[in-house]
Amino acid sequence: MLVCSRCGREYPETFRLTCDCGGTFLVEREYYDFFGNLLPYLDMRRYLNFIPIGGNYLPPAIPAITPVGALQMGPVIALFKLEYLQPSGSFKDRGTYVTVAKLMEEGIHEVVLDSSGNAALSMALYSLPAGITAHIFVSYDVMLEKLSLLQRLGAVLNFVDGDRMAVHERAMEFAENNGVTYVSHWLNPYFLEGTKTTAFEAYEQVGVPDYLFAPVGSGTLFLGLWKGFKELQEMGEIDRLPTFVAVQASGYESLCERSPIKNHLADGIAIPEPPRLGEMERVLDETGGRCVSVSEAETGEALSWLTRAGFLVEPTSAVVLAALWKLVDMGEIPDGSKVLLPLTGSGLKITEGI
Amino acid sequence: MLVCSRCGREYPETFRLTCDCGGTFLVEREYYDFFGNLLPYLDMRRYLNFIPIGGNYLPPAIPAITPVGALQMGPVIALFKLEYLQPSGSFKDRGTYVTVAKLMEEGIHEVVLDSSGNAALSMALYSLPAGITAHIFVSYDVMLEKLSLLQRLGAVLNFVDGDRMAVHERAMEFAENNGVTYVSHWLNPYFLEGTKTTAFEAYEQVGVPDYLFAPVGSGTLFLGLWKGFKELQEMGEIDRLPTFVAVQASGYESLCERSPIKNHLADGIAIPEPPRLGEMERVLDETGGRCVSVSEAETGEALSWLTRAGFLVEPTSAVVLAALWKLVDMGEIPDGSKVLLPLTGSGLKITEGI
Repeated sequence: MLVCSRCGREYPETFRLTCDCGGTFLVEREYYDFFGNLLPYLDMRRYLNFIPIGGNYLPPAIPAITPVGALQMGPVIALFKLEYLQPSGSFKDRGTYVTVAKLMEEGIHEVVLDSSGNAALSMALYSLPAGITAHIFVSYDVMLEKLSLLQRLGAVLNFVDGDRMAVHERAMEFAENNGVTYVSHWLNPYFLEGTKTTAFEAYEQVGVPDYLFAPVGSGTLFLGLWKGFKELQEMGEIDRLPTFVAVQASGYESLCERSPIKNHLADGIAIPEPPRLGEMERVLDETGGRCVSVSEAETGEALSWLTRAGFLVEPTSAVVLAALWKLVDMGEIPDGSKVLLPLTGSGLKITEGI
Repeated sequence: MLVCSRCGREYPETFRLTCDCGGTFLVEREYYDFFGNLLPYLDMRRYLNFIPIGGNYLPPAIPAITPVGALQMGPVIALFKLEYLQPSGSFKDRGTYVTVAKLMEEGIHEVVLDSSGNAALSMALYSLPAGITAHIFVSYDVMLEKLSLLQRLGAVLNFVDGDRMAVHERAMEFAENNGVTYVSHWLNPYFLEGTKTTAFEAYEQVGVPDYLFAPVGSGTLFLGLWKGFKELQEMGEIDRLPTFVAVQASGYESLCERSPIKNHLADGIAIPEPPRLGEMERVLDETGGRCVSVSEAETGEALSWLTRAGFLVEPTSAVVLAALWKLVDMGEIPDGSKVLLPLTGSGLKITEGI
């Protein structure tokens, strides 16, 4: 069932984004026996028994199980999870895979969404084979490389003159005025049912990490990771959660205090007013975690380091490493800690300098 | 040991490309009990017991286990293996991963290679964290997107005015004149030790396919796939090999008859004189396979189809589908056949139209 995160009201599992009270939903089901219910796939379908879709339609571009590369980093062990090795080049494919499967089950063939780029790319890629028309709202400052890919994938593009929040509002208006389903990954509870599989995988690969750093804009990865580990705990598979660290871009903080100088490099998390803010605050409380804000310079330095390590990612992906360095410097991470750092977006599509 | 594919002479397992007779090498070891020797990783390290490296140095950007998406295609079942979901965006990372591990074991810190793009990108990405200086020879018509990525990865670039064979010759000259190790993936036997893991994975995922279509330029994927399935057979794990179909670009054929019109789209396999030609001919003989040549138009049509299916690949990747269509039309593939089609290179780095 869908359960409202604000008022607790329950709804059937249709494609619905918000409660009558305005709150956001989580899909709640009872799962048990994690290892007993894994399917014998070496891709995301391995976890289908824990995903609320029927399986009548599964998109052909199946998300991969992403490798975890461990590197000693000063006193801690950094576990880089290569979430960018996905069909559209970002972790978003996990959420989109489940979303598109659910849309097909519900007979929905036309959708609207807004995105700074990666979510749009992912939705365009999965919509095309499903025969879903995707109206995508982007701002004029979307990366040209991503636009080129969106056009190749047949997305119907709508440009908005304004910031990320303005794009979000125009997309919602379009949906209302045209009676088209809005599939905002910011709100969509099925999206988190995809991103939660990152936690299942990480658990199989490295157990429960001591810390988990995730980039936080709208929180789709952060909350998905929390939901995955939480479900493992509810299944009795693990007895503790990692400490969650939410990493934000300076100037766009929602969980940390808002700073005056903007981090323009980490464009994927430039989301100052995420609708699931309260849920994220609860995760930080529950796991004893905290928020860290990183600057443009810190992001750039971490990005260079990642490139030299062989992780070819986009700038937003680097904020987790910048935040780890910061907390290690402050003596906040005990020696020997295992720290999971999902790297979220591919750097292959960035071709500046041509 | 290294065994010469031409004269059969044996050598110790150092980093060496050719026999005194001029022949190319395969690494020969005896393996047994496939499932009993798998390691509990969900990435390429799963197969480390079947790879001739010690494991003292393993590159951080571990190649992924790539998903296989099955689609009914007319009378046959097409099994698309998403080999492009790798750290540098192509299947080459499997070969490079093993090669760099071997180079580090041998204490080699400076190398030369030539490439049309993907192999260079892969070597640059894996050399950087290993502290290996990579001198890369490319022709002037290398894709700008790939050049931009190579520069970001700190490769030392050398441009050659000439075709793919001229680039190859200049790189060999540089290696000889400067006493620097030449790591041509065309010759390097350790490269095939990486690409063979594609066969191990495919076997775990879908069993032994009836047919296997691979793009063939230098043959590093084709021969790696053959070696992987052959080793499974030698281990007693399987009792038959798939029928191997070598797919080539028109105008650059080496196994098929050379056609007069050039396929410029499939630039990754524009290699008219591959050094391992004899070995590939033997694979076709042994498995009852054949060669198929595809035109630029056929490649483009298959590429569009793949994009619409959600497989965002580069043009060279599409030749296998074009070839499958051709053989199905000719009635050469029995109804119900399972056909493995590795998709080799990512389309994310192609941003034409910007």
